[in-house]
Amino acid sequence: MPTRRELANVIRVLAMDAVQQANSGHPGAPMGMADIAEVLWRDFMKYNPGNPHWWNRDRFILSNGHASMLLYALLHLSGYPVTMDELRNFRQLGSRTAGHPEHDLDLGIETTTGPLGQGLANGVGMALAEKILAAHFNRPDLPIIDHCTWVFCGDGCLMEGISHEACSLAGTLKLGKLIVFYDDNGISIDGKVKGWFADDTPKRFEAYGWHVQSVDGQDGEAVARATASARSEADRPSMICCKTVIGWGAPTKAGTKATHGEPLGAEEVAGAKQAFNWTAPPFTVPAELQKAWSHTEAGRAAEDEWKQLYGRYRSAHPEAAAELARRLDGKLPADWSQTRKAAVTAAQAVTGAQATRVSSQATLNVIGIKLPELLGGSADLTGSNNTLQKISKAIEPGDAAGNYVYYGVREFGMTAAMNGLALHGGLIPYGGTFLTFSDYARNGVRMAALMHQRVLLVYTHDSIGLGEDGPTHQPIEHLNSLRLIPNLSLWRPADAVESAVAWCEAIEHESGPSALIFTRQGLAQMPRTPAALEAIARGGYVLADCTGAPQCVVIATGSEVALALEAVKSANARGKCVRLVSMPCTERFDAQDAAYRETVLPAAVTARVAVEAGSTGLWWRYVGSGGRVIGIDHYGASGKAPELFKKFGITADHVLQEILASIKGTVT
Amino acid sequence: MPTRRELANVIRVLAMDAVQQANSGHPGAPMGMADIAEVLWRDFMKYNPGNPHWWNRDRFILSNGHASMLLYALLHLSGYPVTMDELRNFRQLGSRTAGHPEHDLDLGIETTTGPLGQGLANGVGMALAEKILAAHFNRPDLPIIDHCTWVFCGDGCLMEGISHEACSLAGTLKLGKLIVFYDDNGISIDGKVKGWFADDTPKRFEAYGWHVQSVDGQDGEAVARATASARSEADRPSMICCKTVIGWGAPTKAGTKATHGEPLGAEEVAGAKQAFNWTAPPFTVPAELQKAWSHTEAGRAAEDEWKQLYGRYRSAHPEAAAELARRLDGKLPADWSQTRKAAVTAAQAVTGAQATRVSSQATLNVIGIKLPELLGGSADLTGSNNTLQKISKAIEPGDAAGNYVYYGVREFGMTAAMNGLALHGGLIPYGGTFLTFSDYARNGVRMAALMHQRVLLVYTHDSIGLGEDGPTHQPIEHLNSLRLIPNLSLWRPADAVESAVAWCEAIEHESGPSALIFTRQGLAQMPRTPAALEAIARGGYVLADCTGAPQCVVIATGSEVALALEAVKSANARGKCVRLVSMPCTERFDAQDAAYRETVLPAAVTARVAVEAGSTGLWWRYVGSGGRVIGIDHYGASGKAPELFKKFGITADHVLQEILASIKGTVT
Repeated sequence: MPTRRELANVIRVLAMDAVQQANSGHPGAPMGMADIAEVLWRDFMKYNPGNPHWWNRDRFILSNGHASMLLYALLHLSGYPVTMDELRNFRQLGSRTAGHPEHDLDLGIETTTGPLGQGLANGVGMALAEKILAAHFNRPDLPIIDHCTWVFCGDGCLMEGISHEACSLAGTLKLGKLIVFYDDNGISIDGKVKGWFADDTPKRFEAYGWHVQSVDGQDGEAVARATASARSEADRPSMICCKTVIGWGAPTKAGTKATHGEPLGAEEVAGAKQAFNWTAPPFTVPAELQKAWSHTEAGRAAEDEWKQLYGRYRSAHPEAAAELARRLDGKLPADWSQTRKAAVTAAQAVTGAQATRVSSQATLNVIGIKLPELLGGSADLTGSNNTLQKISKAIEPGDAAGNYVYYGVREFGMTAAMNGLALHGGLIPYGGTFLTFSDYARNGVRMAALMHQRVLLVYTHDSIGLGEDGPTHQPIEHLNSLRLIPNLSLWRPADAVESAVAWCEAIEHESGPSALIFTRQGLAQMPRTPAALEAIARGGYVLADCTGAPQCVVIATGSEVALALEAVKSANARGKCVRLVSMPCTERFDAQDAAYRETVLPAAVTARVAVEAGSTGLWWRYVGSGGRVIGIDHYGASGKAPELFKKFGITADHVLQEILASIKGTVT
Repeated sequence: MPTRRELANVIRVLAMDAVQQANSGHPGAPMGMADIAEVLWRDFMKYNPGNPHWWNRDRFILSNGHASMLLYALLHLSGYPVTMDELRNFRQLGSRTAGHPEHDLDLGIETTTGPLGQGLANGVGMALAEKILAAHFNRPDLPIIDHCTWVFCGDGCLMEGISHEACSLAGTLKLGKLIVFYDDNGISIDGKVKGWFADDTPKRFEAYGWHVQSVDGQDGEAVARATASARSEADRPSMICCKTVIGWGAPTKAGTKATHGEPLGAEEVAGAKQAFNWTAPPFTVPAELQKAWSHTEAGRAAEDEWKQLYGRYRSAHPEAAAELARRLDGKLPADWSQTRKAAVTAAQAVTGAQATRVSSQATLNVIGIKLPELLGGSADLTGSNNTLQKISKAIEPGDAAGNYVYYGVREFGMTAAMNGLALHGGLIPYGGTFLTFSDYARNGVRMAALMHQRVLLVYTHDSIGLGEDGPTHQPIEHLNSLRLIPNLSLWRPADAVESAVAWCEAIEHESGPSALIFTRQGLAQMPRTPAALEAIARGGYVLADCTGAPQCVVIATGSEVALALEAVKSANARGKCVRLVSMPCTERFDAQDAAYRETVLPAAVTARVAVEAGSTGLWWRYVGSGGRVIGIDHYGASGKAPELFKKFGITADHVLQEILASIKGTVT
């Protein structure tokens, strides 16, 4: 039987060779963490390479994603379908061994990492998902949900602010099955970290209420003991600080930043292999080592054992089993279409002015009771975001059988944790903050979109309409800049009905996140034909029309739809023929076929006016050279909302003026 | 003489009354922190209300900016030009007492706060500026730069990740004159924080190497003792954890979230006033209290004392005094125009392919030596961002006489600290990271723009051109989404010459931040007439033209200019007449007069093609209805850069096709 060190060296060799072959990549961290990985993946982690989708597998996250060759080597060696050819094509176009790990569950890649700190926060979300689902579904002696979340992270992850947000929350919520290995190698890209990172990290994590240990990360047995101790700690998340040497084994570069992000060079690689007594050619693993690494049989046995447990569960609790299966498959309940109908019908009954954040909450109260996988939350703005349902119950350290997370003032941590919740499966997370503070979480939103995760972002206080809190809190560029994130659907509804449809569309949209944008201030309810009601889901539709070919089309979203309608009515009353298009979701409208888009925005109508209380930039695409855009391309001000709308020209009068001027412009 | 408590109650009454009058605002924190503020502003802080611009004043930051009435009350009472009428008009349009404090040095408002945690990070920047300037300019027995930075913060600030980034850095850099008061009231918007924030905060800050004390924040004498102790600690930043009661004095609501963000109500206010024995009408401060609060004379005396010191300094070190005065006034050196010329000339001498990040560094090496106020740095990507100058010297805990900050992997903390450095004055900060990770710092960038601060953001690795690191690292939407931030100038130069001009323009642009966008990959040098060279500073200009009226205009930026040029040449070789416009800065181009813009982009030419390796969204405005945009509206991939450009259609061939098709489109 090979020694731990010999087994760890396989990872080192594969990492060196793949980076050398690609002439690009990061050998240092895989070489430094190889001993830890060997212990975890061979002695502790519960997984079945033959079925990466097994619900109750342990989750493994490489938060220091640049160490991707560590993960690919582990996946290959343990038996996941990551072939040696994939390792040979590391970082090449078309390979599945990208520069940074990209979420691909078929291969065993749980999440996309690279942007530092976020993997750790994903891990917090996954551990939280496990705790919540276990609380809801496990039965006495039938712990069918019972797994750990293991995270590798580096100095970079721990310098990032998101590590504070996520780990402070994990400590508060007592996520005892979250276990983090910190690759404490003292080196980051700029060199020795002590010049810019002098934290007493063990003490910091003790301050978060974590179980903390410090070990020699190059000593497999010591790591094994610490891992066993961490796993036996039920209440507190565990941090194992592992003193390591970056690029361990490289004869002259080990312990230096030179091993971090570039190939070691042929000579250094040869020296390391010699020290390892490694004689096999590149991309060849001696059979004995390969065999010792294979987890195929052990993994199948582990899943089989669980299957027996699950079989007993299914017999004893068939309904719960079916419900859990449905949720983990990401399928909506069979009666979802009725729920959707009920939500829209309820919204249609609203008559008076209502803030869309209130409309949103009303919809939540209709759908939430029918959709128990909805897991709500807010970054400490519950009352303002209106994210609480009547049936909401807080997740507490000692009682995870709830459906609402008080995330604290941690927008980024919340978002990345929601990504982890969604990646885990079994829950559909939604979380609120003010639209302006989407900035704090922006890369987390991007990661949700990149990973195609159903994460619902509730952003209220969506314009100058929030009033007195002033320019720091008033979004200007945020609507447009969120629309620019590929694969993010942004809905900015105009009233209660559009709010209900937006929620339902977001819930049905499985392949990406949705941003749901709501007002603080009250909005009037729009009149709507059955056809218009049906068409909301198309993202843009004719809300009000004139008889005959329109001379001008007005496009508006959210709180500006009502004032646009007023302007359109005035224009039509003056004998003009003007159409109003409500455009709650530009992404969705863009995805419609050309014929539908033409029925809404006829190419022949070049007099077009767009109005939105935010940046004008993206609207030029819809109004064209002959069009006009009413918006705000500067910061707001502190004052009463109606005064601000007037001051900044977001008024029905202004829209009317632009309608008339643009019609005149077309005629002359 | 009134008691401490009586003096503190003046703040409480003003806060209650102003919020009541506005029917909007946050009374809780001002009431809870009033006792601390009284101690600091009356017994410790060094300031002169008669001259808010005094260089050597202590800086005060209200990081929990929603407590704005606390600051306004202090400014009013101590003698800054914040009138009682301004307090009466709290949160009203046109008043200078906005919902959240807005940077306005004439009033004594040091920075804009509200987005939580950032004020604290601004404070780190200010304390760092003080330490650096003191190291460079103070002489034995002539400590002309010698002041403290005082920060108030709340639970929200300390939950935010940026508090970790900034405070970890402050501990490492031993910013001993930074003193933070933590309003530990146990309440945030969602209620009692223990459910979502259970940190042992003193322990956490000890882990950062801070000097930490815990006191009863309602006990003025205890606060005074702790403050004295903090001030006497030279080496470590100080955290004073103050146990307080939110809304202290409100008879039934004190200690609850009901006092946080809404008026207390007439009855509660009356009850509090009764408890305070307060009988004066609203917005009236009894003379004895007003007199005790006034800092006008004491402030003048403090500045006068410093002036004597400064006078001796000026006599002994006239050159250093003049240099410091120049820097603190934000004026560039007298020979700046020659420096600029030298930088551009050096760039013109470059012939071969060069990554613009390398061009950027070359420019830095020319200008940095002539511009000692430049303070560089990077979020742990120094070698990749090419931000190090030949003359760069690291700021170290024990030696602040340098000009380069190793910020660590802390993009947001770096950016907000740079805002603080710029706000302090005397330094022009620049800091680098990868363009993608501008996401992490986005609200800090916004705050720089909102506050009109000269902060230079160096963003390298600006497109899929970075290659193998893959989609997490490849910016797509970032160029456009940064352009959407009002008052941010984004420069994406095409070669060495444009890079040099971009740097110089950014340095000359005093009233806002600039983002300088550079490539990882090598770019060819563009041919350029003297007129074209001159016109770079206009943001968009004709780089290559044909004879006669163009049939088509191509607009390109950065790395796409070279391939656009190739396409334009091909088209012109085929007998077409096509113009190439290089558009390094759309904001600057938009600011040119209509006549200039017409000479570059003639309205008559509707066949237009824009090309940029990023989102297409904002380019429609420039190409109009008849135009075409070549860009990337989806995520990138891991692979070699040339293969990615080909795969995603960012090629000269594609541009040529679109040129020809668009000319054809115009003709038919």
